Amino acid sequence: MILTVTLNAALDVTYRVPALVPGTTHRITEVAERAGGKGVNVARVLHTLGDPVVATGLVGGAGGARIRSLLADERVPEAFVPIAAESRRTVVVAEPNVATGLWEPGPIVTPDEWAAFLGHFADLVRDAQVAVFSGSLPPGVPVDAYRTLIEAARDAGAWTVLDSSGDPLQYGLRAGPDLVKPNAEELAGLVGRPLPRPADAVDAVRALAAGTVVAASFGPAGLLAVTEQVAWRAFLTDPVDGNPTGAGDACVAALAHGIVHDRPWPERLVDAVALSAAAVWAPVAGSVDLSDYRRLRRAVTIKEL
Amino acid sequence: MILTVTLNAALDVTYRVPALVPGTTHRITEVAERAGGKGVNVARVLHTLGDPVVATGLVGGAGGARIRSLLADERVPEAFVPIAAESRRTVVVAEPNVATGLWEPGPIVTPDEWAAFLGHFADLVRDAQVAVFSGSLPPGVPVDAYRTLIEAARDAGAWTVLDSSGDPLQYGLRAGPDLVKPNAEELAGLVGRPLPRPADAVDAVRALAAGTVVAASFGPAGLLAVTEQVAWRAFLTDPVDGNPTGAGDACVAALAHGIVHDRPWPERLVDAVALSAAAVWAPVAGSVDLSDYRRLRRAVTIKEL
Repeated sequence: MILTVTLNAALDVTYRVPALVPGTTHRITEVAERAGGKGVNVARVLHTLGDPVVATGLVGGAGGARIRSLLADERVPEAFVPIAAESRRTVVVAEPNVATGLWEPGPIVTPDEWAAFLGHFADLVRDAQVAVFSGSLPPGVPVDAYRTLIEAARDAGAWTVLDSSGDPLQYGLRAGPDLVKPNAEELAGLVGRPLPRPADAVDAVRALAAGTVVAASFGPAGLLAVTEQVAWRAFLTDPVDGNPTGAGDACVAALAHGIVHDRPWPERLVDAVALSAAAVWAPVAGSVDLSDYRRLRRAVTIKEL
Repeated sequence: MILTVTLNAALDVTYRVPALVPGTTHRITEVAERAGGKGVNVARVLHTLGDPVVATGLVGGAGGARIRSLLADERVPEAFVPIAAESRRTVVVAEPNVATGLWEPGPIVTPDEWAAFLGHFADLVRDAQVAVFSGSLPPGVPVDAYRTLIEAARDAGAWTVLDSSGDPLQYGLRAGPDLVKPNAEELAGLVGRPLPRPADAVDAVRALAAGTVVAASFGPAGLLAVTEQVAWRAFLTDPVDGNPTGAGDACVAALAHGIVHDRPWPERLVDAVALSAAAVWAPVAGSVDLSDYRRLRRAVTIKEL
């Protein structure tokens, strides 16, 4: 199975309003709630693809209970570790063409809770072919958490995929994950200068981490993948319009799927671009429609650089 | 004890932001959560005054669990009845001088849950000297719920206080509660025409309901109280500035307190005006500082009309 790790899971709440008018009161007629956090989104897409998956991480309080119950409704297997503090909410106020975000801070994790998670993770990862680490770290979790977890996963014989940003990404990279998926902005942070076009990035990316494949997403410009031997760019000639929230998580799901099914790299990249685009297209952020995905797969171009 | 009834309890969430900018993402640094709903606010003020109180009503899901746990933190006794659907949240985005509200709809209450509440209420109200009914009704609860509950409370020998609006207020009034506390807008709805000044309202209010005392709040213009025999207006010569949220609930708490302690009407009204003003003054909506309350009590003027 694929194990996804979401240390800063969230309850995603969406309020649709005709218009957000500061200083007034809005009666919301419909509330959409989803289990969220990047790794949870990866697990949902993998579940849609039919891959055996388990979502783990940390959840707490009433919000955490709600996250678990929403995952149960979707039949996404989960093995989250409970903590005392409340999991965060991410509230999106969605007007027809504008989204306003209200991001709560993550819960404070105690040293004992972190130690309990490490033990739990060591047990779970023994059954995993791939471990996927996604997103930010809540306060209290050591900044090099992904390094520790990637080393534990590798010791257990699992492939490792990292999708984070800032210091957690930097530290995690030092453990040499098998695959890292920065976006253009995160990649610029890693190499210390902007890399606006995929073709500019190959040499800089190859120098980042020996033994780690870098799959960098450039939004509508596509996906750049750099291994020690070869570099590809996969893209749609006609990029799709829609909501990019969750597209990066769909991309990571496709890459983990490719590892588990031992697909050749070019096929993994075509899948990753098509699945990301299907997520952009989907009416609900982070969902994918498999028929969109199959159709889009035929529209992806792949080039060796 | 005083029993407060909150059929549409809420989890009140406040996000403080320097500025709310539609179309952008706001990282919230501090989340304030409180158990809410008008009857819960009444119970909190009564608890602060030292009166024995029990908060009841309906709560559901993860939000409901959080409401109960927050009441336990404040040591406000509660005997809520669980329902399956999620209790609503009321999200306030608070800029330094502007508040934006996002009000979720109430949970849908099933007929079985409503029947269970009626049985539970009949048990609880036997120990109550006063039953206070506050706020809106969630979907699924009969629109004449307050009539049914007021009749049950009266049969059990409790005094009854009603603070609602629209149809639930209209129907509840037909049961002849001992006291009803509309604000100027609700009063205008009841009598079918605007009554901007307390002095204009006496005759119309007296015709509303035989045997029911009407205490109508006119914001900074004070409180009008009309019994069958006499009418008073109580007010502050210098109205206080601040957040009026929760002032009406503090007023209701003072009136229930006056019933339990059998205070003369003029004293009840002075208390009600002072406690409302203390709530307006308080930095946290709906809280009261008892020393503010005592000081403000000396500043209230009361006049027979």
